[in-house]
Amino acid sequence: MPAMKSSREALSVLLEPVADGMERMRAVLAAQLQETSPAVSDMTEHVRRFRGKGLRAALVLLVGEATGNTTDEHASVAAIVEMIHLATLVHDDILDGATVRRRVACVNERWDNQTAVLLGDFLYARAFALSTDLSSRLASRLLAETTRGICVGEIEQSTRRYDFELAQTTYEKIASAKTGILYGTACTLGARYPGGNEIVGDAMETFGNRLGLAFQIIDDCLDLTASTQGLGKSVGTDVEDGKITLPVLRVYSHADEDQRAAIRDVYTRPGLTDRAARLREVCDLEPGLVYARNRARTLLHAALKNLKNLPDTPARGALFGMAEFVSERGF
Amino acid sequence: MPAMKSSREALSVLLEPVADGMERMRAVLAAQLQETSPAVSDMTEHVRRFRGKGLRAALVLLVGEATGNTTDEHASVAAIVEMIHLATLVHDDILDGATVRRRVACVNERWDNQTAVLLGDFLYARAFALSTDLSSRLASRLLAETTRGICVGEIEQSTRRYDFELAQTTYEKIASAKTGILYGTACTLGARYPGGNEIVGDAMETFGNRLGLAFQIIDDCLDLTASTQGLGKSVGTDVEDGKITLPVLRVYSHADEDQRAAIRDVYTRPGLTDRAARLREVCDLEPGLVYARNRARTLLHAALKNLKNLPDTPARGALFGMAEFVSERGF
Repeated sequence: MPAMKSSREALSVLLEPVADGMERMRAVLAAQLQETSPAVSDMTEHVRRFRGKGLRAALVLLVGEATGNTTDEHASVAAIVEMIHLATLVHDDILDGATVRRRVACVNERWDNQTAVLLGDFLYARAFALSTDLSSRLASRLLAETTRGICVGEIEQSTRRYDFELAQTTYEKIASAKTGILYGTACTLGARYPGGNEIVGDAMETFGNRLGLAFQIIDDCLDLTASTQGLGKSVGTDVEDGKITLPVLRVYSHADEDQRAAIRDVYTRPGLTDRAARLREVCDLEPGLVYARNRARTLLHAALKNLKNLPDTPARGALFGMAEFVSERGF
Repeated sequence: MPAMKSSREALSVLLEPVADGMERMRAVLAAQLQETSPAVSDMTEHVRRFRGKGLRAALVLLVGEATGNTTDEHASVAAIVEMIHLATLVHDDILDGATVRRRVACVNERWDNQTAVLLGDFLYARAFALSTDLSSRLASRLLAETTRGICVGEIEQSTRRYDFELAQTTYEKIASAKTGILYGTACTLGARYPGGNEIVGDAMETFGNRLGLAFQIIDDCLDLTASTQGLGKSVGTDVEDGKITLPVLRVYSHADEDQRAAIRDVYTRPGLTDRAARLREVCDLEPGLVYARNRARTLLHAALKNLKNLPDTPARGALFGMAEFVSERGF
């Protein structure tokens, strides 16, 4: 997997302007995952191995630097954002029936659904508890509201499963709620925490929302095309779960009636295995993937416009690089 | 079910000193459960029908009155405590595989596990969001920490399933963490919110913790003895889930080897149905139930000692009545 390795290296170079902050963020995260209860620490140890790219935490720190707003507490804010993301991942694994997350067995595979629910709850609670220790309430407020929004997005999504008539705007609204919103809040907090700086904060929120939406669209493309080994998490789960993502929506809307019936059959026929591979057999996904990737690029372009008033610093450069990373990423 | 009806009536009489506050609490709760998303409001509407006894909310209000600490925000604090309790119930239903909760189909029965996880997350998020709108951070702080403690208790419990060697102290530690702690925090907040009043708050916390532990012990007895119709939620779920509760621990520790083997068999033999009924067949649970109920009474007695310095008011009288209700309740 040399491509993936070099992609990880590229990301690490990108995050150099906030390398110290990222290290402090990881230390805070590690401390928060420690528990005196052996049963709990066994599980949080497992979650630590997910590690992940830390993109959301990096956005808090990079936007903080780029807007000249970095405080001593930014690393903690970044850790809280990352913990909320981890909690959504753990609960998402229950939802998706996914079995592999970042090359480590999912919580619900190694333990069971019970435990995964509790561990996710634990991570949310830890995140909120840490946020209430900060000097300003801004992080608590925005993140509680953001978490609510993510849940609403996920619930909306689950009611739209197997809905091939989904409008692209509805798909994007849901993807914004479940992914864009946390990117947006990470950026707002970077620019505004502990308070003030609202105009810059709003521009950064728009930057983050669009970046996050683009990230989700690319994620939906990778779920159809990547290998589990390359991506480091289960793929094809959207098809298994009946989630109709942008590339499929596009192909479906341009297909004739026979092809539409074949696509619906792949999603719904009971007992079918490896539905994503079957889907690639019954239709040509490529035009849908090209369309979706273009849409992601358009969104990234729109996102970057919000950085135009920021001074030219390495952190601002890294935010541009982040947009490129999202667009080109293979993991 | 005339007994249950009069029991509900008795509770309603008990809560008269805070009837106005309870009404305001329910109004806040109803407003918080409203969502513009139709998919979400359909589900929260369903949760509203759980209603429940509102004991935890009542404790916030009664302790507030009894300690002369009632503020305009107490009803909101009470609603937040109740929402956190609702969230734990929704997630608990996933854990227990329970199918009936308060005579209303469980969320995970009517929808699915996915939805139940998301709805619980939504309720937690709403609760935390509301707490960040209060004038003092005390509720956010204590409730985030309490939620973490509840998760740790539930995780500990899940690792101790089928453990017949569980010490009574460990059982009580777990029951305190999963139930006592929220009762304790409800009482602390009643006495202390928005801040100060620490000594009284500590006594009220001890009162609440012991009351909550006693409540849980009685709950564990009812799970073995009550009917689904009378209790209004699934019964026998502890046996199904391998939870070894105090009455069973007691019977097991006094049983001979043959009887122990029979008890273990009822818990573990694959495919067995109605395990609670089978358990009643293979052993006499009565001595265990008597022992557990006595333990609950001892705890309630110890709880009430913490009220001794409070002035003699209707609210203090209601707290005494609450202890009696917990001890005598059939639902």
